[in-house]
Amino acid sequence: MKNPISNDKPRRNFIKKSAMGIGGISIGLPLTSALAADKYTQTKKLGVALVGLGNYATNQLAPALQETAHCYLAGIVTGTKSKEKVWMDKHNIPKKNVYNYDNFEEIANNKDIDIIYVVLPNSMHAEYSIKAAKAGKHVICEKPMAVSVEECEAMIKACKENKVKLSIGYRLHFDPYHKEIIKLSKEGSFGKVTYVSSQFGFTIGDPTQWRLKKALAGGGALMDVGIYCIQAARYAYGEEPIALQAQEFRSGSEKFREVDETVSWQMEFPDGKISNSTTSYAFGTNHLVVTAQKARAVIMPAYSYNGLGGIFNNEKLEFPRINQQALQMDDFAKNVVANTESKISGEEGLKDMKVLEAIYKSLASGGKRVTI
Amino acid sequence: MKNPISNDKPRRNFIKKSAMGIGGISIGLPLTSALAADKYTQTKKLGVALVGLGNYATNQLAPALQETAHCYLAGIVTGTKSKEKVWMDKHNIPKKNVYNYDNFEEIANNKDIDIIYVVLPNSMHAEYSIKAAKAGKHVICEKPMAVSVEECEAMIKACKENKVKLSIGYRLHFDPYHKEIIKLSKEGSFGKVTYVSSQFGFTIGDPTQWRLKKALAGGGALMDVGIYCIQAARYAYGEEPIALQAQEFRSGSEKFREVDETVSWQMEFPDGKISNSTTSYAFGTNHLVVTAQKARAVIMPAYSYNGLGGIFNNEKLEFPRINQQALQMDDFAKNVVANTESKISGEEGLKDMKVLEAIYKSLASGGKRVTI
Repeated sequence: MKNPISNDKPRRNFIKKSAMGIGGISIGLPLTSALAADKYTQTKKLGVALVGLGNYATNQLAPALQETAHCYLAGIVTGTKSKEKVWMDKHNIPKKNVYNYDNFEEIANNKDIDIIYVVLPNSMHAEYSIKAAKAGKHVICEKPMAVSVEECEAMIKACKENKVKLSIGYRLHFDPYHKEIIKLSKEGSFGKVTYVSSQFGFTIGDPTQWRLKKALAGGGALMDVGIYCIQAARYAYGEEPIALQAQEFRSGSEKFREVDETVSWQMEFPDGKISNSTTSYAFGTNHLVVTAQKARAVIMPAYSYNGLGGIFNNEKLEFPRINQQALQMDDFAKNVVANTESKISGEEGLKDMKVLEAIYKSLASGGKRVTI
Repeated sequence: MKNPISNDKPRRNFIKKSAMGIGGISIGLPLTSALAADKYTQTKKLGVALVGLGNYATNQLAPALQETAHCYLAGIVTGTKSKEKVWMDKHNIPKKNVYNYDNFEEIANNKDIDIIYVVLPNSMHAEYSIKAAKAGKHVICEKPMAVSVEECEAMIKACKENKVKLSIGYRLHFDPYHKEIIKLSKEGSFGKVTYVSSQFGFTIGDPTQWRLKKALAGGGALMDVGIYCIQAARYAYGEEPIALQAQEFRSGSEKFREVDETVSWQMEFPDGKISNSTTSYAFGTNHLVVTAQKARAVIMPAYSYNGLGGIFNNEKLEFPRINQQALQMDDFAKNVVANTESKISGEEGLKDMKVLEAIYKSLASGGKRVTI
């Protein structure tokens, strides 16, 4: 399969050098410098095409691509004709880089596009990620990776076969508050992590949206935002859950006829450690509490795009503003150039999907313990 | 039955006036002033006798009684002969105010003792609270109130019949961090409380202690510290739970042969609201997170005697140091003098006991939903 990066030696080399040169610095650079660097290297950045121009693409990813140093918004794929001109004008996208779902496969021939970011409803993640891989493009797929373990495995296989990289939209791995939790777990200077409580819910609005349709979303609150709690418990412990049990709560609202409304679940980790989480579409809650032998850390709000806060051992945690999605996409661009695996790889997405399936299995059994 | 306060008109009137006079101010008074006031009114304060001179009585209640304005440490009841002289010397307690478990009933004739504070192992709470009531003394009983709903009801009945007040050692109702949560719930200026996550556990030491013996403790982590999470969810919502389900986790350690080690439970409140909690003797965790429509609050640590901290809508919460137990005992002394009910009454303790019994019932059924 054609790999646009491999076929484009001069650019690849330049970016490789550039990426190595500024490496870790880019994250720490003041925004103005990062933007200045952007302008200078614009033509040398990797081109990203967004597939699906919904809220997240419009309000988070496109603006983030104004702050990236190693990639830029090069193209779009949309089924809504009226969006084409709006996006072309706003983001200076040439007509040749605009696709719809009928001519999507032709993107294989477009050298401007190095990375395809799939931002479609969950049930379409696998199909379009696999199409992107087959087109020889590197893939970022939004979370949840897909709607089943089987689909995740097919995506990983397709990316391997087509020698393209795969990454999942786990933006929080690049957020300084969450990096602090990962560091707490990895470094061990505050002893072992002994307990994780992670809760994320919000009051969902429009009852007609795809998130409430089983066929498009695959599941409800658990699939959409509960996944952040699974992720958080996994990276806070730095280990994988071995079993879990789950409980479901329903208000009876018609809105949640097809998908889960509120779910709690307890995961068991090695050596008797557990985590406890709740997710909901019926109420807001947004925090991550990690207890270690010599540390108490809370991030609250924990899962928002910005405005995160926290306490670490009674001291207020305060980090400078960053753009999670810009750092996430830049990191992947560097993975592509350096031919390294994303730390938020397909395998990482698959692990969460196995947990999600186990939770739904426990719910279906009335809360029985399920091994993972 | 003899009521030492009713029989002691002049003192009662003085205290009543004094209590009304300084009323709400005492809480806000700088410590030095409170201590000065203590010296001045020492002989007019209500006398407290501590029953059971273990760790909590020694390291928390006796020191707290040095900071109280409306009561003082007047007597002790102990089965350990060697403790008598130590306490008499340290706290200036006359021999006539020292009792053991053989002559405990004689305390009825001691006008120095107005309040009996039962700090014995849980399974002895009911017996000694009832004995205290029968002796015509007002009763403070440590939490958990007893080891069964039946015992709690008997305690309430005995106190009513003997016309004495009953209060449970829920010190956190007097802590400014928790008062903030109660205010958040009651005032509603930040909208309704929509979710409560409350977790409290610690790593228990000495495997021979009474807390690990079913016959003395009645239960394990849940009974001992999980009860704080039940309390917190109840006052954070300002409502009573209507159903719950619970899960148990065991490491297999011999230490926890007789009692519960780690328990999670989800309570259902009116209008579909839920809380989620974990308690443990196997690991530390100590926080309360309350989400309202327009507020996010975390207290962490939440359940300690001091050093509490928190965040309210991204602002760090910081209150001056207070002594929870001193405020708690002073409040009860004022209840006694004013003939008003304690806000942490026996009925309050009974409500938690009903929840505790429901949790154990759910655990016994393998996690089934239990209505309360």
